[in-house]
Amino acid sequence: MILNSLSQNLIETLFNALPEDCLRRAEPRYLEEPRSRYRGNNASYVALPRTVDEVATIVRACNTAGVGIVPYGGGTGLVGGQVLDQGPVPLILSLERMNKIRAVHPLENVLVAEAGAILASVQDAAEEVGRLFPLSLAAEGSATIGGNLSTNAGGVNVLRYGNTRDLCLGLEAVLPSGEIWHGLTRLRKDNTGYDLRNLLIGAEGSLGIITAAALKMAPRPASYGTAFMAVNGPDAALQLLALARSHVGESVSAFELIHRQGPLFVAETLPDVRQPFVDPPEWMVLVEFGMPAGADSALEMVFEVALEKNLVNDGVIAQSAGQRADFWSLREHIPEANKRIGSISSHDISLPLSAVSEFIIVANSALADLGEFRINCFGHLGDGNLHFNVFPPKGQDREDFVHLRDAVKNCVHKLLQGFEGSFSAEHGVGRMKVEDLEKYGDPTRLIAMRSIKTALDPNGIMNPGAVLRA
Amino acid sequence: MILNSLSQNLIETLFNALPEDCLRRAEPRYLEEPRSRYRGNNASYVALPRTVDEVATIVRACNTAGVGIVPYGGGTGLVGGQVLDQGPVPLILSLERMNKIRAVHPLENVLVAEAGAILASVQDAAEEVGRLFPLSLAAEGSATIGGNLSTNAGGVNVLRYGNTRDLCLGLEAVLPSGEIWHGLTRLRKDNTGYDLRNLLIGAEGSLGIITAAALKMAPRPASYGTAFMAVNGPDAALQLLALARSHVGESVSAFELIHRQGPLFVAETLPDVRQPFVDPPEWMVLVEFGMPAGADSALEMVFEVALEKNLVNDGVIAQSAGQRADFWSLREHIPEANKRIGSISSHDISLPLSAVSEFIIVANSALADLGEFRINCFGHLGDGNLHFNVFPPKGQDREDFVHLRDAVKNCVHKLLQGFEGSFSAEHGVGRMKVEDLEKYGDPTRLIAMRSIKTALDPNGIMNPGAVLRA
Repeated sequence: MILNSLSQNLIETLFNALPEDCLRRAEPRYLEEPRSRYRGNNASYVALPRTVDEVATIVRACNTAGVGIVPYGGGTGLVGGQVLDQGPVPLILSLERMNKIRAVHPLENVLVAEAGAILASVQDAAEEVGRLFPLSLAAEGSATIGGNLSTNAGGVNVLRYGNTRDLCLGLEAVLPSGEIWHGLTRLRKDNTGYDLRNLLIGAEGSLGIITAAALKMAPRPASYGTAFMAVNGPDAALQLLALARSHVGESVSAFELIHRQGPLFVAETLPDVRQPFVDPPEWMVLVEFGMPAGADSALEMVFEVALEKNLVNDGVIAQSAGQRADFWSLREHIPEANKRIGSISSHDISLPLSAVSEFIIVANSALADLGEFRINCFGHLGDGNLHFNVFPPKGQDREDFVHLRDAVKNCVHKLLQGFEGSFSAEHGVGRMKVEDLEKYGDPTRLIAMRSIKTALDPNGIMNPGAVLRA
Repeated sequence: MILNSLSQNLIETLFNALPEDCLRRAEPRYLEEPRSRYRGNNASYVALPRTVDEVATIVRACNTAGVGIVPYGGGTGLVGGQVLDQGPVPLILSLERMNKIRAVHPLENVLVAEAGAILASVQDAAEEVGRLFPLSLAAEGSATIGGNLSTNAGGVNVLRYGNTRDLCLGLEAVLPSGEIWHGLTRLRKDNTGYDLRNLLIGAEGSLGIITAAALKMAPRPASYGTAFMAVNGPDAALQLLALARSHVGESVSAFELIHRQGPLFVAETLPDVRQPFVDPPEWMVLVEFGMPAGADSALEMVFEVALEKNLVNDGVIAQSAGQRADFWSLREHIPEANKRIGSISSHDISLPLSAVSEFIIVANSALADLGEFRINCFGHLGDGNLHFNVFPPKGQDREDFVHLRDAVKNCVHKLLQGFEGSFSAEHGVGRMKVEDLEKYGDPTRLIAMRSIKTALDPNGIMNPGAVLRA
């Protein structure tokens, strides 16, 4: 199906069908994305519904008119899933007004949030009843839970609590036909047919619009212990993780591997951010235990054993909530520092755990053959998820290296294939990685994905060109 | 599409395409199921492939011939998903020869098993490397991991480790077209398109044949503590669970609610099974902690606090591995005792946690209006999953109550709807609950399910009549 551009006719239909302030010309913020690789069409409108029925009205009208819909969450996506930069003018659909916490069930550890709720406000709603909503990522102050669900966002607590899909029990969604699926179940077990929930989660808005979700909360650990430890390489870090788990089981909440390059970039571009090490070690981990009690002493014990086993050589345990916040602040400012330095090519990759260490060695060496780069490698080690970002040498401009971007990217992706890794661990496919998916994805799965897309969205209106070629 | 019966022509095609011992007349065991409600066609053949390529050959041939395939795992399903009792004669496909553990990755906590592997042998493979494969259920000695995945099996450790879908990282599968999806990833994070894995998991063989899976193992807790506690009702049991979690976090591995009726049935029909209580209390829980150390003392502490809070009134903590096995043996023999007593109607249901207690009261009262019954209510309380099974009064025959089966079932299911519960928590839909799904399922979701089925299996060959009406 070839889509139509948003027409005056459809705009009038929508004006008549919706409350009067629900539709307007899209301001620039809806047409931009953080990495400035995609730019939306200035002729786009944005629809701002307040209810699932209004969303259904909008989707139905667009489906009838054959006009594309681009769902817009917090705008923090890094793969261009929220910006359509070519083809017929779409309607942008923002659920920012559907941002209520509809219900909180502390005894069940469940809350129901509308898709437009900011992640931080979902976290706050859980905290108010003494619970934890464990999804945690750098963009949590502006990302929406609907966007998190649509991209199956990851973050720093996946190790313990899973990806976003693992935190969701039920969904309310509008399918491309404009029909509403009322699936906001709070059940922990419900084996009654196909898993539509997980199909919509991670589909990046290409199969329907998630409008609300029943989400799992977790007990809030009473005691947190947080430390930076200097490790003797990625392999030692993995052994440290196994050691930590043998001592405290699932209480390892976060385990972030950080190469020296990250803190150096932060020191260079964000000098106000506090640094735990005067001279950062080559490799360090930020590790956090969350337990009913005694997390600090458990952390100390693990550190002592790790020292004996020659896995770590230095470390600092946070002595206060303030210091804990400082530790996390350093970790969370790495992406901003990267942005200020300006990468040649960024890679959100994952590997089988036992391949992580070797991959880093092989990839560093392969990239060295292509030229002189600085590599900032950091990530969620327990998930095998690395952010492997490539920068020009100090003092040089990224513009002088743009011609190498494809070579760098292809080098990394080819290596990944050999290691059975993935070219997108947590950011998704969006528009940026559609070709990679075609190139590296399993052909049978791609055919199945295409069949499912056509079955649920025969007119191809939902986020055209995201995940699958339009 | 109307299917064809398995023809001499197709049988010859398969004989020629497969090694000679791969096809034979189906013995009775492939045509029966545990509850004897469904009986397969005697003219059926069973195919017994050894490789995924042979599976693909079989599926392709059936798809071309328009002949239905009934996938057969361990045969332990309770909703008739493994037996086609009407319509054109199908081919039965058993993966019992594809039962290898292909690989074990202890450092990654991953193993790769073929679909025909018996669940107990997957557990054993994990134990051999000092890990835990946490899926655990009464039928684990004969159920296959392929069947567990296809039905998204639950069991006693869901509370801590999740349903089968939560234990799976990747799949190898043959889609209805006969194409092979090579998706055996060991990655913890991989956001590259639609979640085909979760779509096949729980589809009960109606969207394709799972031939192998990459499965998560967990660290094996060094210390287990297991206890029976007499609780002051289901509500007190839920409070006890919250109390336990506030003390030991995720270390609560199992939390089974058991009504007195279960142990009484076991005493009546299986007198050799040891009983922890001479006179079983009205409500009890079987609770298990698995921790790096000190599980027994943690259990004792929780029991003391629960006693003070008047949640429990009696209890016994297992003092040896033998006693722990005895405790579990009682729990696991309840289904067999039920079978020997003979139920009028069995219900595998789930509820929002906070509704469990009230549901039990309301349902007992509603059923009392229908007649005099014995109700054996037990289940996985932390998951909100009850097995709510209805029996004739002592000394009376179930045949005299069969006429009440529909009334009992409808009564339970109607009540469930009011409580936002599910009519199938862990057993699936199979053939037995297709009508319930049509009656109680969300209409938009049903339409989407039907679209997906048609898109992936346009000829309707995969397990016809399971989940969706053929």
